[in-house]
Amino acid sequence: MSPTPILPPDDLEPVAGGGLLDRRMFLRQGIALGGAGLGLLAFDADATDVPRWMKTPGGPFTNYGEPSAYEKEAIRWISANAKAPGHGISWTPLHRLEGTITPNGLHFERHHNGVPAIDPEQHRLTLHGLFSKPIQFSLEQLFRYPMVSRQCFVECGGNSNAGWHEEPIQTPVGYFHGLASSSEWTGIPLSILLDEAGLQPEARWLVAEGADAGAMNVSIPIEKALDDTLLALYQNGERIRPEQGYPMRLILPGFEAVLNVKWLHRLQAVKEPLMSRNETAKYTELEPSGKARQFTFIMEAKSVITQPSPGFRLKGPGLYQISGLAWSGRGTIRRVDISADGGRSWAPAALQEPLLSKCFTRFRLPWRWDGSPLILKSRAIDDTGYQQPERSTLIAERGQRGYFHYNAIVAFAVDSDGSLRHVYA
Amino acid sequence: MSPTPILPPDDLEPVAGGGLLDRRMFLRQGIALGGAGLGLLAFDADATDVPRWMKTPGGPFTNYGEPSAYEKEAIRWISANAKAPGHGISWTPLHRLEGTITPNGLHFERHHNGVPAIDPEQHRLTLHGLFSKPIQFSLEQLFRYPMVSRQCFVECGGNSNAGWHEEPIQTPVGYFHGLASSSEWTGIPLSILLDEAGLQPEARWLVAEGADAGAMNVSIPIEKALDDTLLALYQNGERIRPEQGYPMRLILPGFEAVLNVKWLHRLQAVKEPLMSRNETAKYTELEPSGKARQFTFIMEAKSVITQPSPGFRLKGPGLYQISGLAWSGRGTIRRVDISADGGRSWAPAALQEPLLSKCFTRFRLPWRWDGSPLILKSRAIDDTGYQQPERSTLIAERGQRGYFHYNAIVAFAVDSDGSLRHVYA
Repeated sequence: MSPTPILPPDDLEPVAGGGLLDRRMFLRQGIALGGAGLGLLAFDADATDVPRWMKTPGGPFTNYGEPSAYEKEAIRWISANAKAPGHGISWTPLHRLEGTITPNGLHFERHHNGVPAIDPEQHRLTLHGLFSKPIQFSLEQLFRYPMVSRQCFVECGGNSNAGWHEEPIQTPVGYFHGLASSSEWTGIPLSILLDEAGLQPEARWLVAEGADAGAMNVSIPIEKALDDTLLALYQNGERIRPEQGYPMRLILPGFEAVLNVKWLHRLQAVKEPLMSRNETAKYTELEPSGKARQFTFIMEAKSVITQPSPGFRLKGPGLYQISGLAWSGRGTIRRVDISADGGRSWAPAALQEPLLSKCFTRFRLPWRWDGSPLILKSRAIDDTGYQQPERSTLIAERGQRGYFHYNAIVAFAVDSDGSLRHVYA
Repeated sequence: MSPTPILPPDDLEPVAGGGLLDRRMFLRQGIALGGAGLGLLAFDADATDVPRWMKTPGGPFTNYGEPSAYEKEAIRWISANAKAPGHGISWTPLHRLEGTITPNGLHFERHHNGVPAIDPEQHRLTLHGLFSKPIQFSLEQLFRYPMVSRQCFVECGGNSNAGWHEEPIQTPVGYFHGLASSSEWTGIPLSILLDEAGLQPEARWLVAEGADAGAMNVSIPIEKALDDTLLALYQNGERIRPEQGYPMRLILPGFEAVLNVKWLHRLQAVKEPLMSRNETAKYTELEPSGKARQFTFIMEAKSVITQPSPGFRLKGPGLYQISGLAWSGRGTIRRVDISADGGRSWAPAALQEPLLSKCFTRFRLPWRWDGSPLILKSRAIDDTGYQQPERSTLIAERGQRGYFHYNAIVAFAVDSDGSLRHVYA
């Protein structure tokens, strides 16, 4: 559904160019948003038909249920190799969602050799290598251990990489930035299990391997493994789904998703990283100097406006609410600024509480569009003081041949007909 | 999966009777949980078979996905009238879940005449009665308005009512207390819409009606409608599902669920409550005096241990983690105490942050069971100072003929064979 305007109250002064209004506007009681001028229908009792769904009994109960048949556009968009259907990605439709939680059915996917159907009774997690007591855990044994919960995002290191293209791609926001999702994860602090197996002091890395047919593997720095890494067993309350790593996966809050190994079955403690495909040929970035960045784990601060956004159309001048998501792999989002004049002036958006570290943060700002063409941008600032860079700054530092870790400011041009385009501006 | 024990470190002193341990125990680095004494398998490289799911390509991508086929017990349990299949309830399987979010597919249901299949293009929300500008909103118009998000629980006023039975029922926790679920809801503050229609000062109640074939209706006090009531459009990120009120429902944080009207299509501002079936024949409580409590909106503080719980079995003496949920319709959970000696002594559980008002709060506590029979209890205290009552206290105040708003302390007897029973103790 396209957003349509509310005619603005006449007495509101903009706080920045392009019609941005004060973020606290909607918190005031009794503010008139426009009343009869909005095209709302005055209620006419005679015109109130009883809809057909009030005339016949509704459908039965369901053990699990699914979204409305009218919401068929809110699905994961799949981009997979037709000749190897288990290899590819699927995107979270961020442009169709609100709030901060990603439903489990819409969490993005990245598979290298399909989704394994693992029998939890047979699955084992093995800790070996530089441990004094290498051990294997069954699921039943792991359920003995203490658990914690946290909400955090998981983002692919390759998310938003179309930003490196010479021409801006025209696609809905979710199919550009939707290799990022956010959930409440519950599991065992990995440090407890490492301690059980007697991690030896000379161990500097853990080689994590999944039990998929690709045996996906990467090296994890020991400092992160001992910090906030979880062996996750539950996602948004229920057991992790097959495509998210059932029966268990790693969660490394703020680190690129490839390290959050799914279907985890092996952790080998070692002195040196493995130099696997996913930390050499992939997930490294060639810089202008010809050197490559490697082990660039942390996803830097990013933000994107989800509404209004390309694929939707404004229905004329009036009041809108700009809404979007911001996140940082370094900590908590401190501020999100919005510009409606291509970056000449900025206004701070309202941030939805609670503000959680390494988690999606929803931002919103009232905006009065006067019908003129203009450019919308958002920029995130995290609690380390890091500010999301303009695209020109990122390109100057990283060159044109990057592929991973693209986090530049995103710009949408609003044309006078209300349509939106992704632009470099 | 039944929890099985970890042999406890010998140097940990209990903090209360029955083997309760300090809630900060798991926060300490380097604590030995038992090592080789846990029955863990020492890793033997020769014994590491490659499982069958690593030998063949996995399954394809899915647009929405579903839980693992091995988790078929984590479903809503339906209790409906076979002759009127749209009338009844379904329960959230709280005993199979962890964390605080309830997945949308597992949110409890209460339907009076089935789940309507509403076309959002045709649906209208009408505000009429004591408004200076009665109006009808289409979905498209409503999407013009500002939104906010909040996590909160929704609980049926009849949840846990088997507690009034003379004998304790023996059933999994979710089928006793699972008419309660918790989600992140996103929608429009109702106060904004009431203001748009010009709510008149003499209006004291709103009569809310759903567009189901039962035309479910109740009266909502105007103070709550102007406070934190939401017209919710999204649940856990995606549009609300049909069984939760698609395309829109009311959310009144902390109030009994019957007021959170689903499939909302009409709000009539009036001076006196409607005295509908659901606020007279139902959702009232006969007291010992013969008088009935009416308009008992707020769900008082409650807690329940979800693991270990009836239907599961402890596998012998050793260390366990007690885990459960607490919530209060008045505000934030301040403390949850656990007793492992039938209420003689209590120890405070660890509360999972962030602590959110009118929301599920996950509590956990380490516990060393010595194999003796004993009784587990939990009690919640909220930030008003209210403490969940013992069952005898609740019965003394409210009598034996109650049906709604049962929130007494729940007790489980642990027998020497590790089985658990619901008891009145």
